Amino acid sequence: MSNDTPPLHRHDDSGVATLTLSRPSRFNALSEEMLGALADELERLASDEQVRCVVLAAEGRAFCAGHDLKQMRANPDKAYYQQLFARCGAVMQAIVALPVPVIARVQGLATAAGCQLVASCDLAVAARSARFAVSGINTGLFCSTPAVALSRNVSRKRAMELLFTGEFIDAEQARDWGLVNRVADDEALDRVLDELTSSICAKSAVALRTGKAMFHRQLAMPLDEAYAYAGEVMACNMLAEDVAEGIDAFIDKRRPVWRDR
Amino acid sequence: MSNDTPPLHRHDDSGVATLTLSRPSRFNALSEEMLGALADELERLASDEQVRCVVLAAEGRAFCAGHDLKQMRANPDKAYYQQLFARCGAVMQAIVALPVPVIARVQGLATAAGCQLVASCDLAVAARSARFAVSGINTGLFCSTPAVALSRNVSRKRAMELLFTGEFIDAEQARDWGLVNRVADDEALDRVLDELTSSICAKSAVALRTGKAMFHRQLAMPLDEAYAYAGEVMACNMLAEDVAEGIDAFIDKRRPVWRDR
Amino acid sequence: MSNDTPPLHRHDDSGVATLTLSRPSRFNALSEEMLGALADELERLASDEQVRCVVLAAEGRAFCAGHDLKQMRANPDKAYYQQLFARCGAVMQAIVALPVPVIARVQGLATAAGCQLVASCDLAVAARSARFAVSGINTGLFCSTPAVALSRNVSRKRAMELLFTGEFIDAEQARDWGLVNRVADDEALDRVLDELTSSICAKSAVALRTGKAMFHRQLAMPLDEAYAYAGEVMACNMLAEDVAEGIDAFIDKRRPVWRDR
Repeated sequence: MSNDTPPLHRHDDSGVATLTLSRPSRFNALSEEMLGALADELERLASDEQVRCVVLAAEGRAFCAGHDLKQMRANPDKAYYQQLFARCGAVMQAIVALPVPVIARVQGLATAAGCQLVASCDLAVAARSARFAVSGINTGLFCSTPAVALSRNVSRKRAMELLFTGEFIDAEQARDWGLVNRVADDEALDRVLDELTSSICAKSAVALRTGKAMFHRQLAMPLDEAYAYAGEVMACNMLAEDVAEGIDAFIDKRRPVWRDR
Repeated sequence: MSNDTPPLHRHDDSGVATLTLSRPSRFNALSEEMLGALADELERLASDEQVRCVVLAAEGRAFCAGHDLKQMRANPDKAYYQQLFARCGAVMQAIVALPVPVIARVQGLATAAGCQLVASCDLAVAARSARFAVSGINTGLFCSTPAVALSRNVSRKRAMELLFTGEFIDAEQARDWGLVNRVADDEALDRVLDELTSSICAKSAVALRTGKAMFHRQLAMPLDEAYAYAGEVMACNMLAEDVAEGIDAFIDKRRPVWRDR
Repeated sequence: MSNDTPPLHRHDDSGVATLTLSRPSRFNALSEEMLGALADELERLASDEQVRCVVLAAEGRAFCAGHDLKQMRANPDKAYYQQLFARCGAVMQAIVALPVPVIARVQGLATAAGCQLVASCDLAVAARSARFAVSGINTGLFCSTPAVALSRNVSRKRAMELLFTGEFIDAEQARDWGLVNRVADDEALDRVLDELTSSICAKSAVALRTGKAMFHRQLAMPLDEAYAYAGEVMACNMLAEDVAEGIDAFIDKRRPVWRDR
């Protein structure tokens, strides 16, 4: 695949925007070009009111193998590395900051910053044959930025085991540890993903967009502040037309018809 | 059941105060009346030195189905909602602030703010047939305040899956995720609950009351502050008569006789 | 064993420093002498650049039964207790602050501050017959300082169940809850430990030492600060000779030869 092909494709269908990492021959490494394309698309998605959820997918035998090591070795310069990791951190934070849920669709390998991508998504579905590692330590480069996302997904000793040994875990281990939500037989991956996106797309857009920002913000607060903030958010949410419709439909035992988008 | 019947009953036995939500026909919804009754009873319990632990139970086929949606729809007013969620948040925080452990006894459904009640308790025992959801999103109302408690019980991706899909998990899933401690066959629920309350009631009141406040406070602190605080609490605890008795009994291999209440 | 024998032995082999608690007749209780010996050895290790990882082991039928209750009862004085718990907290924090990973090797009982030792280590390997409890509450002394470490390893309701009931969990439960990483058949404990230490000792010292401090520090930060900090750490890590060698070896599909120690 030529370098002129865009490294990232976007496909929209029924409220689901799917971003597909498209450098399979490079194991979808997070090169400067890939990070740039992700940053651009995430920025566009941030203001796209048609979208109810985002899927982050990848072509080929690997989901994502992390940073582009050859590119990094070709630029042996501290300022270059600072900028690269700042850019990567900005992409990960843009996923968290996106107003709608982001779901990783994981097949093959997700290593180093590729594993960080999975950890940064709100939800993740993995093929049974998928494998996960934060393996930078095998090259002398501790996965420091991946550790930020990983340690907010899995408990402390498990995160440290992965980071210090660089060893792989399989999809079921990843699910048992909280790094992915659902594991599907490889051939059923898209079906299981569709169940999840369909469930989310059936919700009111107001509720989805209210929820994601609120969830992340309250997590960092002490309990009393979190309740004060969440209570205020919920009182505002109650005033949405969709909630009147949703509660009436619930009481009437019928399916709601959402108005807000 | 008439509206004149109190929505909440309290029964005390051998140091265990059991509060029972008693609006089974309304699935024990957290109406204004129910929240008021809970707030009052929790306030009384806060200064009741006879109590060693509190059980939060419920009558009927549901533990608690969350807020009273009809009452909410009948009061379409932002100030009303602000006050309602503030009141609900205060009840949840009163459970956390109570000086003794609070155990949820869960049968049937625990949904939305009902699931938040379970998450807010220190411990929970569930019937095998119990089911849990934060299902507000199905009516367009994201479970923002339930998310506060839920996200402090289960890991991030699991909390988000529950909140964004509104789907149910069963009791064993809830236990595996850390939302409940023990699952009992339905007919053995009270026996398993009794084992837990008996174990707690056999402890020194000084130790129980020292522990709960300390536990929640240190959680929010950085490690050095947490150790400084916990060390000071433990030095004070050491001066209690019960500890002298408890250690002597341990060394003598006999059962301690607690003096403090 | 006479009181003149040192309560703690250190043995170094191929980059692994093993500290062995050596008061088996006292269940390796954390007496003043034991805490003093641990503090001294941890201080020496902090500046020992030959060490790649530390194993915390113990002689006899118990890993560690917590504080020395007889010594505590013999000194019924608040200032004494304040000093004792401060000293114990300092030892636990010295484990966390050590520049290289610390692995607990657990056999038999790990109770109260003994369980805290396990929780304070970065990693833990347990014999299948090992058992864990924070059982101070049985003597009227709530395990306040152990709770600090425990609640940073296992989720909230599980930590509270252990603390309020004082009950034991076995090694597999401890692994499922995140308190230990690996469980080995009793006779295979050292083999499983060796696999873990060998994996860690095969890594670059620069990466190991970069990683541990970074991991603990970023955990306490909000997401944006954590990324800014981790990105800066990783840019510095990239400049190490070991990383150039590690990446080149990875690209060449050969084993890296680390230079830095």
